[in-house]
Amino acid sequence: MPRSSGPVDSPARLSLISRHLAPDYPLNTPYTVERHPDNIDTSLLPKTQTRALTTDTTPANMSTQPEHATLLIPGPIEFDDAVLNSMSHYSESHVGPGFVAVFGETLSMLRKLFQTTDPSAQPFVLSGSGTLGWDLVAANLIEPGEDALVLSTGYFGDGFADCLKVYGANVTQISAEPGSRPQLPEIEKALSEKKYKLLTVTHVDTSTGVLSELKNLSELVHRVSPDTLVIVDGVCSVACEEIDFDGWKLDGVVTASQKAIGCPAGLSISMFSGRAIQAFQNRQTPPTSYFASMKNWLPIMQNYEAKKPSYFATPSPQLVRALHTALGQIVAQGVKERFAAHKAASDKIKAAVAALGLKQVATNPDDQAHGMTAIYLPETVKGAELLPKLASRGVVFAGGIHKAIAAKYIRFGHMGVSVLDPSRGHIEKAIKALEEGLSECGYQKA
Amino acid sequence: MPRSSGPVDSPARLSLISRHLAPDYPLNTPYTVERHPDNIDTSLLPKTQTRALTTDTTPANMSTQPEHATLLIPGPIEFDDAVLNSMSHYSESHVGPGFVAVFGETLSMLRKLFQTTDPSAQPFVLSGSGTLGWDLVAANLIEPGEDALVLSTGYFGDGFADCLKVYGANVTQISAEPGSRPQLPEIEKALSEKKYKLLTVTHVDTSTGVLSELKNLSELVHRVSPDTLVIVDGVCSVACEEIDFDGWKLDGVVTASQKAIGCPAGLSISMFSGRAIQAFQNRQTPPTSYFASMKNWLPIMQNYEAKKPSYFATPSPQLVRALHTALGQIVAQGVKERFAAHKAASDKIKAAVAALGLKQVATNPDDQAHGMTAIYLPETVKGAELLPKLASRGVVFAGGIHKAIAAKYIRFGHMGVSVLDPSRGHIEKAIKALEEGLSECGYQKA
Repeated sequence: MPRSSGPVDSPARLSLISRHLAPDYPLNTPYTVERHPDNIDTSLLPKTQTRALTTDTTPANMSTQPEHATLLIPGPIEFDDAVLNSMSHYSESHVGPGFVAVFGETLSMLRKLFQTTDPSAQPFVLSGSGTLGWDLVAANLIEPGEDALVLSTGYFGDGFADCLKVYGANVTQISAEPGSRPQLPEIEKALSEKKYKLLTVTHVDTSTGVLSELKNLSELVHRVSPDTLVIVDGVCSVACEEIDFDGWKLDGVVTASQKAIGCPAGLSISMFSGRAIQAFQNRQTPPTSYFASMKNWLPIMQNYEAKKPSYFATPSPQLVRALHTALGQIVAQGVKERFAAHKAASDKIKAAVAALGLKQVATNPDDQAHGMTAIYLPETVKGAELLPKLASRGVVFAGGIHKAIAAKYIRFGHMGVSVLDPSRGHIEKAIKALEEGLSECGYQKA
Repeated sequence: MPRSSGPVDSPARLSLISRHLAPDYPLNTPYTVERHPDNIDTSLLPKTQTRALTTDTTPANMSTQPEHATLLIPGPIEFDDAVLNSMSHYSESHVGPGFVAVFGETLSMLRKLFQTTDPSAQPFVLSGSGTLGWDLVAANLIEPGEDALVLSTGYFGDGFADCLKVYGANVTQISAEPGSRPQLPEIEKALSEKKYKLLTVTHVDTSTGVLSELKNLSELVHRVSPDTLVIVDGVCSVACEEIDFDGWKLDGVVTASQKAIGCPAGLSISMFSGRAIQAFQNRQTPPTSYFASMKNWLPIMQNYEAKKPSYFATPSPQLVRALHTALGQIVAQGVKERFAAHKAASDKIKAAVAALGLKQVATNPDDQAHGMTAIYLPETVKGAELLPKLASRGVVFAGGIHKAIAAKYIRFGHMGVSVLDPSRGHIEKAIKALEEGLSECGYQKA
């Protein structure tokens, strides 16, 4: 595994700067196999929503959403009706007692989702994409010139490393080949060579579907380098993979709303340990971001959870209401049950993929995520050919985005209501579409 | 007017750092007069939404939203039904052709709202609060050690200065007394003393309702210091105050979704000139933020507007759909007509306030915003007493947040549908509630 190291020297820094200004951004347009021709006529595409009306005669389990293609990409996912209805909540003051109570409960429910009862742990819910969680870590938990060890299992591990560098961290990266993950002995060796302020790991890298092992990793860090903070990118894992925040002694998990949590995109959601907050408070220099500054947000989050109105920047009452609804469902079901349901659906999907004679990007079964499956295409089939055939069957999968293998695989997201509400029939529909689509592309299992 | 200057020296920097770590954050909980006792019983407050069903018998102009207190704070505002319905749009891929077309049109419509036809101007729509716009400016358009001139007419001017300092700018601030604004001769003097990379002005400071004059200010900057970028905080002005982006030669206007644009909170919206983009591209050092980096977002915005799928961080399809609906309404009405309607409503409100014998925080009529009114309370009336009386009449106003005068005034927001849809009767209801509430507090016009 290649390890790209350390403090950026001067010519490398110049090269970095020139790359910053380069006009081509290959990784910024990664959905190559989903791309449509530039001259597509979009004038006839649906642009405004026609909502189906809920009536008293609607059966309990039937979605009242207008008919639409089933979105089975690794986020955004399909949403529950009650969550979507919360999105159109009438306007209310972001500091009024009704919304403050809802925001406070939302933060409290996050503690249950992350399985933490430690009062020194601190949840954050900010308006932003999941990516903002990286800035929250990079601008608050590490200071310019300090060392970070980044474990990368794909596109998003590399992104976390880039973000840390922007804020001045010296990044050492351990990158696995596509489909595998850095191994504990190599990580132990790195940890013993340098004193790292923090280590980051992508729990599930959405680009590869590789699941990282958190419990043993965190044990290793606490044994070999006890002062190093253990930071998890949980964007594609929170609410579908087991995360025992307290039990595994994690220091930070950053995620987003639109994946397994099941709330529309637009919220950065995170949990930090008392140890992480302490590291922030012990900084020698101020945080290096304003919008992503814990200095600005910490008292706000504490106030909201205590049901006190508070202001730094205006939150989105509608998104927070929707998150409240989604978390209410998660807590009511129980997180253990939720993880088990995702594992059961994943096992079924992976068996179906194997039965089709297809291989996953994540090679080792223990390294395979339970909320998504990255599937290698047969050599004779192109994603650009297959994905439209799935779409014509009402199923939307995603193309590959790992630069080394982008054109060779597709991604199937199976999180949230698509897994938890069997009456929707999403998983069966997707497997059938995959079988038929491949067959239509001329593929027959060898 | 006090001018707090310049490069932060070493002891001052230490003091700054210690302030960063101080446990009390008086300005972070500014809604003092809106605050309810900590022991308020929130268990009976509405936490989930009961949506009224739209039926075919609903008259054209009548809102189908559930009954609720009319929100007349200076943002978030009351929303149009169609905009709220767009918020609950079913899930769709952020890189699928339907959403990409909607996002592209949204960006194009922003050009109309800002009245720019210059193809080198660039709109941005990011998940985040309005505050993120400050980071976008501070992390991309100015480099550490460069000088910024900040004109402050209240809380939000001070905030913009704080944000610029976080990213290493040397900030010179010209602050007006509450209720007034920095005057051109003083600004000209400052501009002639130092070469500023950029100047910032808060078009309407939400804390005071003071309207700044942009046209003459920009002319002054272009005459005295032609290389200085003219940056406008338009959070409380875009879509209710005239902004002629091209005609006034502005370089940047940053705003948010939840005020006069009339879309729920959660989007940072901005427009930058070709000159601003050039300044970004000519940086000697990389941008100092990751999530707020123009390097990361510029190609994405350009691709979306060209209807090409593109990815840096997941946008919120629901929020962008809602913004698309809101902008569609704005463009259909015409921006000039929208500005005129806000001015007419504002004139009426300000006349009613004067008729009640009350004074505005903004002393000079030319400096009074048209989307909100900051009203000094009679000496005998406290906001904590009056606001609940308004609430009992179904009207929500905001308390004061300018630290020098916070307890002495209240704020009345009059933007968007509350002004544009007379059938809602919001303005009349609010004026009547204000009259009755003051009377109930024992106030009689002298």
